[in-house]
Amino acid sequence: MKKQIAILGSTGSIGTQALQVIEEHPDLYEVYALTANNKVDLLAEQARKFQPEVVVIANEDKYGILKEALADLPIKVYAGAEALCQVVEAQPIDIVLTAMVGYAGLKPTINAIKARKTIALANKETLVVAGELITALASQYQTPILPVDSEHSAIFQCLEMNNPVHKVILTASGGPFRTFTMEQLQTVTKEQALKHPNWSMGAKITIDSASMMNKGFEVMEAKWLFGVTPEQIEVVVHPQSVIHSMVEFEDGAVKAQLGVPDMRLPIQYAFSYPKRESLSGERLDFAKYHTLTFEKPDTTRFRNLALAYEALHQGGNMPCIVNAANEVVVAAFLKDQISFLGMSEVIEKSMAKVPFIKTPTYGDYVSTDAETRRIAAELVINGMK
Amino acid sequence: MKKQIAILGSTGSIGTQALQVIEEHPDLYEVYALTANNKVDLLAEQARKFQPEVVVIANEDKYGILKEALADLPIKVYAGAEALCQVVEAQPIDIVLTAMVGYAGLKPTINAIKARKTIALANKETLVVAGELITALASQYQTPILPVDSEHSAIFQCLEMNNPVHKVILTASGGPFRTFTMEQLQTVTKEQALKHPNWSMGAKITIDSASMMNKGFEVMEAKWLFGVTPEQIEVVVHPQSVIHSMVEFEDGAVKAQLGVPDMRLPIQYAFSYPKRESLSGERLDFAKYHTLTFEKPDTTRFRNLALAYEALHQGGNMPCIVNAANEVVVAAFLKDQISFLGMSEVIEKSMAKVPFIKTPTYGDYVSTDAETRRIAAELVINGMK
Repeated sequence: MKKQIAILGSTGSIGTQALQVIEEHPDLYEVYALTANNKVDLLAEQARKFQPEVVVIANEDKYGILKEALADLPIKVYAGAEALCQVVEAQPIDIVLTAMVGYAGLKPTINAIKARKTIALANKETLVVAGELITALASQYQTPILPVDSEHSAIFQCLEMNNPVHKVILTASGGPFRTFTMEQLQTVTKEQALKHPNWSMGAKITIDSASMMNKGFEVMEAKWLFGVTPEQIEVVVHPQSVIHSMVEFEDGAVKAQLGVPDMRLPIQYAFSYPKRESLSGERLDFAKYHTLTFEKPDTTRFRNLALAYEALHQGGNMPCIVNAANEVVVAAFLKDQISFLGMSEVIEKSMAKVPFIKTPTYGDYVSTDAETRRIAAELVINGMK
Repeated sequence: MKKQIAILGSTGSIGTQALQVIEEHPDLYEVYALTANNKVDLLAEQARKFQPEVVVIANEDKYGILKEALADLPIKVYAGAEALCQVVEAQPIDIVLTAMVGYAGLKPTINAIKARKTIALANKETLVVAGELITALASQYQTPILPVDSEHSAIFQCLEMNNPVHKVILTASGGPFRTFTMEQLQTVTKEQALKHPNWSMGAKITIDSASMMNKGFEVMEAKWLFGVTPEQIEVVVHPQSVIHSMVEFEDGAVKAQLGVPDMRLPIQYAFSYPKRESLSGERLDFAKYHTLTFEKPDTTRFRNLALAYEALHQGGNMPCIVNAANEVVVAAFLKDQISFLGMSEVIEKSMAKVPFIKTPTYGDYVSTDAETRRIAAELVINGMK
């Protein structure tokens, strides 16, 4: 039986690579549903090639284009956020890959968990915003959440049955500004920030990598995925991105997963787990990667990482505040409306301004998200004056 | 129930560290038997402290001293090679740690396998000499063989149920002469060879490390322990000895076990497997180990590694020949009777001179070992003239 896969966000970087994995294993995987936010032409092209049962375009204005493009095919075409949430519940689906960007991943992920679909989690914001709620739901519905982030997949690959994790060590490339001084950071542009040294990814996550907010989010994600405390999560800067992350056990043994930077591997592992399957592509060659280096992250220059740890310590809706403020400032930075260092300032001020809720409900997350976006947008505008 | 442990070679480097592990976990492990070759004073001291049921001194001339030293204790005292082989069969023993040096490990290991004792294998020569026979026996008697060598323990820790190994990558420190030229190697002394940069070990294995014969033996050991072909075993020089070894899977994922160089960890893992237990001592700190490097081994300067691969390809009694010749030349080198590079020459000539047997019996191994020692000793003496 082929595994039936729904890809939420099929036109993004993770989505397109997931389709490459599926294309390499037509005997193992089949596409059941594809969804995209805006890129209707690519979505139509993917649908024509992979022949899913259903496609959904989130932006309802693009429905007509998509419907027409697929008129000659027996594919169901839907549009809108609500359709996107419902599509994951279809009975034949085995795995839902959540590869959309940002807070928008929360609701469909909740639906997929309740429908007991294995979650291949690429949308880390889901756990950042509502980790407690999501993990409780996953436990209640006995739905596995398998990480797709390369770091968390590495840790997941190193776990051992019955041997508890003593510490997880998340590696970080350090991004394009790793060696920049505070003075240099003051004037960096989005063009510079969008050039990640090792990974080719979407714009949002690339900026998050440059600002190290991505690593902060990964710390939060690790807490929920692996049930560890913030004190058990260490970040080590490792510019070569060869060691994808590590686990330390009680006896001091450290296990790591290594490889060339290639997101298809963690995507495939989430699909094939617990088995591994063959995968084409470059293999790790130590003649090429002959020197691996490690350094401590600098939370003075990369303040976001400290803010993330602080939010994790405070808990409640604080990570949701950080995430919403971050989505606002990254969008602003991509429009040249805020400076690189200004992003952390707005996030920190948002953390102080938005009301703290110790044990938020789903409704509280929704209102915290909206309220934070309002406040952060105001702070951005005030900063521009 | 405490695990009852027999340590063959308790006065050596592995043996004394195994006793440290046992001392740290009096609730988990108990010493049932201790054996040593010659160091009767240390053996008596260990027996007084750990109160085993039995002690054996291999050198029969030392029996009187040992018997007298333990006269006031209810400990059975035996001497001689035969007693050493028999002691492993005692019913209460759960685990036999084979930590003696060289070919002498073969017979007691065979007895322990037949008595269905879990083998914690530190004596790699057992598998080098008679890997086919040993693994067949272990399979027949359903006796687990758990590696204690740090490299093989690392690989063992990285294995996955049901996911086959695509390749194993054995790391090698490169020893004290890693950067030496051929000219420099011609005149190195035993004093230089005995200074290993990372590991504190016995004299035999330290010389084997300097000549890379140890890595050659580890390649053979890996073949038998993990059921891989010589082509699936890669050696990478990694001078910092932080990555203890690696496994590559079908999908290209590489898993590694890392840590500070500390043999107590693989010893304890062989005792506690599949569980891990706490262990005191230094933890891996990337502030200290901030740069890890990798290079290809040079089999021109370190010919032993090429000879080992050749012996493994030929199979039969060829690895037994290499091992016996190596034991002779290392003993000669430690007595200043042969040069560092001369060791490889004698091994290579022995490989050509001793009759090749494609499918040796146990008796063939015994006669091959004896014949090779005679021939190699002659070659050493001729070289001295």
